[in-house]
Amino acid sequence: MRAAVMRDGRIVTDTVPDPVPRSGQVLVKTLACGICGTDLHALRHGEAMAALAREAGASVFSMDLRRDVVMGHEFCAEIVEFGPGTVRTLAKGDRICSLPIVLHQGGVAGVGYSNDFPGGYGELMVLSEPTLLRVADGLSTESAALTEPMAVGIHAVAKADLKPGDVPLVVGCGPVGLATVAALRLQGREPIIAADFSAKRRKLAEHLGAHLVVDPREEPAIETWRREAGARSAVIFECVGVPGMIQELMRDAPQGARIVVAGVCMEDDQIKPMVGIYKEIGIQFVLGYTPQEFAASLRALEEGRIDGAPLVTGKIGVDGVAGVFERLGSPEEHAKILVEPWR
Amino acid sequence: MRAAVMRDGRIVTDTVPDPVPRSGQVLVKTLACGICGTDLHALRHGEAMAALAREAGASVFSMDLRRDVVMGHEFCAEIVEFGPGTVRTLAKGDRICSLPIVLHQGGVAGVGYSNDFPGGYGELMVLSEPTLLRVADGLSTESAALTEPMAVGIHAVAKADLKPGDVPLVVGCGPVGLATVAALRLQGREPIIAADFSAKRRKLAEHLGAHLVVDPREEPAIETWRREAGARSAVIFECVGVPGMIQELMRDAPQGARIVVAGVCMEDDQIKPMVGIYKEIGIQFVLGYTPQEFAASLRALEEGRIDGAPLVTGKIGVDGVAGVFERLGSPEEHAKILVEPWR
Repeated sequence: MRAAVMRDGRIVTDTVPDPVPRSGQVLVKTLACGICGTDLHALRHGEAMAALAREAGASVFSMDLRRDVVMGHEFCAEIVEFGPGTVRTLAKGDRICSLPIVLHQGGVAGVGYSNDFPGGYGELMVLSEPTLLRVADGLSTESAALTEPMAVGIHAVAKADLKPGDVPLVVGCGPVGLATVAALRLQGREPIIAADFSAKRRKLAEHLGAHLVVDPREEPAIETWRREAGARSAVIFECVGVPGMIQELMRDAPQGARIVVAGVCMEDDQIKPMVGIYKEIGIQFVLGYTPQEFAASLRALEEGRIDGAPLVTGKIGVDGVAGVFERLGSPEEHAKILVEPWR
Repeated sequence: MRAAVMRDGRIVTDTVPDPVPRSGQVLVKTLACGICGTDLHALRHGEAMAALAREAGASVFSMDLRRDVVMGHEFCAEIVEFGPGTVRTLAKGDRICSLPIVLHQGGVAGVGYSNDFPGGYGELMVLSEPTLLRVADGLSTESAALTEPMAVGIHAVAKADLKPGDVPLVVGCGPVGLATVAALRLQGREPIIAADFSAKRRKLAEHLGAHLVVDPREEPAIETWRREAGARSAVIFECVGVPGMIQELMRDAPQGARIVVAGVCMEDDQIKPMVGIYKEIGIQFVLGYTPQEFAASLRALEEGRIDGAPLVTGKIGVDGVAGVFERLGSPEEHAKILVEPWR
């Protein structure tokens, strides 16, 4: 099959072996697969990422970078063929979403972060039958491909465990921040305040449910927050993921604030514990989602409670992946780009 | 009055003006005052501490280090004289404990971290009448002086918000760690696991209620925890307060652990956010206590639910403070040293 392959620290287009479904597995055709910031990280900091994952016991991310990896874990796909030992509740041709993991004899592998299980930047994938969720006919393939990134926001907000008086501030409106805004709106939170330097992203944040958006060049986000929230408690979602952000938010945060770290920072970072101590700040690191949150994300998209369509700002074939990996550094231009390997 | 004074980055014994009680205030004679690790920090890193406090808006700690400061905030004292506008529910000669803060016209000052309100390393203090708690006759003055440090443990455990399945690990058995062990025992937690390099401190931890103590030279504390706790959730109390501890605990912690940072680290610190992200770790910084927790601490000491007596490993006069500030670096020797300024 044709795929965009991570090889020697670069993305190349090549023909690679078709994956073969084994017991309990299903072969699917990738219809659309979003490009995720973590994939950009993986390309730049792959070794560090794999080393940290091993250190943290996160086997799902343990790939061997000396061998090919086909990334892509935000997909909507179509069932092509059932492997042996499958129950076949769904039918060939059904559109599905799935947690990007595959159960196999050796355990669990991360689809898109594995040498053995190619992700959605290739034409075909193998998935585990029990994790497949059928996509309702009314939902576009493009929107269904947002199930995974939106689940990330749903999970971040769930882990934040907001109390009635808490007022959220979302710092950074890339895909993670936008998903967080959407998830806060799903919970009926008000007001939702979101900050980003990009006018385009602020507009998307408003579309997804932010009541108030801030350009940090015009006013520090926390000042806007203070004016709106007064003496209420702050729950700040860090959705930027660069070194220095955690300390910057600790410095700006009001007394007793909680910071939910949803942005992925691969590098070492520096903090001033005393600032955290004086303010009794809480920090919650979050990652991924539960199967329930993943299913809830698809449901929210299907029922129109999240309108993700405007997030899709570009569509490309596998040939375009390498170029997009360069351009995603410019946030004014894009929110979510989908790869359509069948193009 | 005679006092151990922080002056030009050193502790000197000198005679300083007697404090004068103003409206709503009470003059007290210091009977005993514990030496706190934070005071050692204040002497070494005073400027940084004051600067961070200003940055964090913690006005209670904002002292001018170019002027004298009489430290000491863990005290039991005796009422000597009532200022104007006092209600006088208590009587002269009553022993009292108090939150180490004074309400004054300008706001709230920290007793022992103020240029205007000397702390317990001097013979006399001025306190606010509403914060005074009478010490029951049955409780020794030495134990009553432990009210403040024990309240720190009660607060740390309260902020940890332990769930039934959580198993605590206390890392570091200095006064903060020991108070945390005592507070966990007050809550009836079992098992309580505590680690320290010092045999003496491990023995004190057992006395205060630890079911299992670990010498990290013999086994990493987290291994002991894993053997005891199995798949239950970890709540790790960081009671050491040196750079590198937070990251070390994040690296060792099991998935989903919560780290309560009760140790006071004045310096910048480095973390690897990815380790926190992979494990979805929570960090809660804590400081101080509420008035209710402070009162609960005194009650627990009075009722014998905390037996603090063995923690007092030395007693000195004001002349001895400077020397002790040197020696407290050697944890094998001491847990809590009390200053008795009347000596």
